[in-house]
Amino acid sequence: MIDVKLGVESLTPIRPIEERIDVWNSISDNQVAFKSIDVAEDYDLLRSTLQEFAPDAVVHFAEQRAAPYSMKSPSTKRYTVDNNVRGTHNLLVALVDLGLDAHVIHLGTMGVYGYGWSGSAPIPEGYLRVKLDTPDGEIEREILHPANPGSVYHMTKTLDQLMLAYYAKNDAVRVTDLHQGIVWGTQTEQTRRDERLINRFDYDGDYGTVLNRFLMQATIGHPLTVHGSGGQTRAFIHIRDTVRCIEIAADNPPAPGERPQIFNQVTETHRVRDLAKLISDLTGAEITNLPNPRVEADENELVVTHNQFLELGLEPTTLSLGLLEEVRDIADKYAHRADQSKIIARSLWRADKAN
Amino acid sequence: MIDVKLGVESLTPIRPIEERIDVWNSISDNQVAFKSIDVAEDYDLLRSTLQEFAPDAVVHFAEQRAAPYSMKSPSTKRYTVDNNVRGTHNLLVALVDLGLDAHVIHLGTMGVYGYGWSGSAPIPEGYLRVKLDTPDGEIEREILHPANPGSVYHMTKTLDQLMLAYYAKNDAVRVTDLHQGIVWGTQTEQTRRDERLINRFDYDGDYGTVLNRFLMQATIGHPLTVHGSGGQTRAFIHIRDTVRCIEIAADNPPAPGERPQIFNQVTETHRVRDLAKLISDLTGAEITNLPNPRVEADENELVVTHNQFLELGLEPTTLSLGLLEEVRDIADKYAHRADQSKIIARSLWRADKAN
Repeated sequence: MIDVKLGVESLTPIRPIEERIDVWNSISDNQVAFKSIDVAEDYDLLRSTLQEFAPDAVVHFAEQRAAPYSMKSPSTKRYTVDNNVRGTHNLLVALVDLGLDAHVIHLGTMGVYGYGWSGSAPIPEGYLRVKLDTPDGEIEREILHPANPGSVYHMTKTLDQLMLAYYAKNDAVRVTDLHQGIVWGTQTEQTRRDERLINRFDYDGDYGTVLNRFLMQATIGHPLTVHGSGGQTRAFIHIRDTVRCIEIAADNPPAPGERPQIFNQVTETHRVRDLAKLISDLTGAEITNLPNPRVEADENELVVTHNQFLELGLEPTTLSLGLLEEVRDIADKYAHRADQSKIIARSLWRADKAN
Repeated sequence: MIDVKLGVESLTPIRPIEERIDVWNSISDNQVAFKSIDVAEDYDLLRSTLQEFAPDAVVHFAEQRAAPYSMKSPSTKRYTVDNNVRGTHNLLVALVDLGLDAHVIHLGTMGVYGYGWSGSAPIPEGYLRVKLDTPDGEIEREILHPANPGSVYHMTKTLDQLMLAYYAKNDAVRVTDLHQGIVWGTQTEQTRRDERLINRFDYDGDYGTVLNRFLMQATIGHPLTVHGSGGQTRAFIHIRDTVRCIEIAADNPPAPGERPQIFNQVTETHRVRDLAKLISDLTGAEITNLPNPRVEADENELVVTHNQFLELGLEPTTLSLGLLEEVRDIADKYAHRADQSKIIARSLWRADKAN
């Protein structure tokens, strides 16, 4: 629906969800079912569906998912907050009301931490060990990492965190929060089995992440547009690994009464200008610098702790290994579908950034 | 509206708002106007009203205000989150959209801090100084005090905090957040001028705070009901002082671009059992202990920093000075209006607390 409003489309052709389900069920023994519910608006249907299905786990991705979109206008800001907060809260209320001990696996974001806040200390997995002075001497506490969101979208994920923590504490809801980096890559082992199962590849300025924008720009011969100096460091993960992470999380739920378990779902970090260089080397594309539309530091370090998933068996697909496949099998292959007018980011973080 | 649903009424007779406004305007040179807007549901009217009025400050109290009510049912939980989050966010979006540099004075709560979290360290005014280890040695940071809400209502105030902090940072909205303790007392200098201006005195189990419940119980000859051991320490402030605090806050806005200014709007702390003792001594009422419906520690220390308002000129009305007036002029005077069935708290924080 938002696609239609923005006039954008995935570069890869996405079949209707009913068709994708049918295709999957025709090639796999692992049959899946689909039901569309607006979890923010239709609490009763959400509740009755949970009651009927009695899931062991709920993978909760039902949120407006793009930072630039959340900053487009008063209406998209309001939609992002209303939709994301209500969806998460409705799910938690329904589980508690039904007495269902389902493990909630929530999609968070690396953006809850902000960038550069903790000096040279690596970003921990959700919880930060701090010391504070008291009249009885110094004490230590482990706290939820302070929230430093850079957009209304990221802000909603910091609101989610507090709701998840509250319901874990008050009602013993079991929660895993996945602080995901920027997802790249289009195919998983599953979607590769039939072209009609292919995943989205967004490249527009509002929904596309930086890597996909670069790939598209390279493919159509547009210079790679780096915002500011490109010194912003970001964390990345291949889509195959995100799927594996969810599986690992589902296999390792926290105990009831535990605080939310938080994993950093990232496998590597890169500066934006180094990414551009990587793609430029691979494709021959030029690089150009544009003013940064975001209210953020032009340069930042980013060292992210992400041991938990590695210890639980994740074997990452790295950019250096997987990027060529992405150029060849996705960007080049579907280039004829690209809308060239959509590849420059246009959402402004603040009115005075308009110049 | 919630009053009607709950079947409760203020002990003091509350005239319709239009009449109260007329009365005030007939006795004061300081004329006030009134407009009713559902700020959570009617964004357009909120926006056009702000545009027309162009206020210097917005005192934002437009939230579902009771912890027990927020815990009554799935529907009151959802209403509390939907209403409170949307109201606050709509206001912030509208101010930014209009480019209005109005000072937002938001009603927070002491409940954002939780109780007993920081050992013997006093609860600071909003921000906590912590130390963390980094590869380059120990560094200091001042962080928003970690959120430890004890109810869905208190949780919404922790969500508000993050939204206020975000809009202060991203859009330079000027914000003061008032972390208020339990308000006691019924009359201010203004309401005293005409009986039709009198404030609410809630004493029911859902909307009444502990002190009012004790006062009512004493007046009708019911034992004072202390939950658990009564060792819970709470922070209090007289309603006259809350009004003065808002005035002081309005006279001292932060600069644009500053983080939200946070005041602890409390003047003294007491254990619940000491409060009961105080009222028992004053009235001769008996004291009885009941199981605690809340998920909380039975005993807690509470040392609250509240220097900022004192330094800015607040002269508190203390319980020891003002309580007799409250017994005589409010509880005794209006006792004939009391509904005796409403004075035991009935909201359960968690299903297994039902016994």
